[in-house]
Amino acid sequence: MPSESLRWSAENCTVGRAWDIIGDKWTFLVLREVFLGIRRFEEIRVRTQIPRQVLTNRLARLVEHGLLRREPYQEPGARARDEYRLTPMGFDLYPVLVALREWGDRYLADAAGPPMITVHRDCGEAVHAFLRCAAGHDIASPREVVPRLGAGARLLAPT
Amino acid sequence: MPSESLRWSAENCTVGRAWDIIGDKWTFLVLREVFLGIRRFEEIRVRTQIPRQVLTNRLARLVEHGLLRREPYQEPGARARDEYRLTPMGFDLYPVLVALREWGDRYLADAAGPPMITVHRDCGEAVHAFLRCAAGHDIASPREVVPRLGAGARLLAPT
Repeated sequence: MPSESLRWSAENCTVGRAWDIIGDKWTFLVLREVFLGIRRFEEIRVRTQIPRQVLTNRLARLVEHGLLRREPYQEPGARARDEYRLTPMGFDLYPVLVALREWGDRYLADAAGPPMITVHRDCGEAVHAFLRCAAGHDIASPREVVPRLGAGARLLAPT
Repeated sequence: MPSESLRWSAENCTVGRAWDIIGDKWTFLVLREVFLGIRRFEEIRVRTQIPRQVLTNRLARLVEHGLLRREPYQEPGARARDEYRLTPMGFDLYPVLVALREWGDRYLADAAGPPMITVHRDCGEAVHAFLRCAAGHDIASPREVVPRLGAGARLLAPT
């Protein structure tokens, strides 16, 4: 529906809005680390090599947008610090992360293979992202999917 | 496995590499448009409001990285131009786009709802992103997933 799409505004597109929150490489790498169970500032910093000030800023933004929450911890003899944990909103990004990693594994991995895989805890088999419709049909290709106007569709203002 | 992960390098992480290609808001919005069937420079420009020079650059990068290909077309009375079509590598990004839109729809849509939905062509039901393991089990939560070292895992150099 190329010509049909052109009548509608992309201004309130939720992909664009999602991108405004997570669409920054540092932000996304921070989320990757937290999903791996790496929750402390120093550990995230060492793994990602994000400059301190940038990391402070990205963590604060993720807390502010509701994807991470702070949880105090204290090592013996040290001052109390915060670690960062995913909120339900943060957890819900997991399919995005898996789908992106899968694509990267397919096209961009070292010749030796990807550095990590994820498996189902109960059975040990590799985990993959896929598409399915609400009637339970697997979607094998984007060609099987068609766009429809949503309740929030806005006509493009005439120019 | 927080402490275990810390022993391994994130340097060849395929999420990071994928991000280096598509991790730019303009780039991602261009892909969104092409997935919607909007393939021509002017149409993409109008929908996304991307500045001409930036759009030229992003389209060239997507061709160079193998996600889009150019296909000549000619309107009557106009000079020949290229339109942009997804390659198989580009098509394979579709689950990322759907998963991200779904997350955006859940948390960031207008009160009226999202501007568009996608449905299964054959049955008309809404399409969603899911995780499933190779044994066919649905994955309901990231807590059911565990990381394992992949063939390309690299020990972190001692610092």
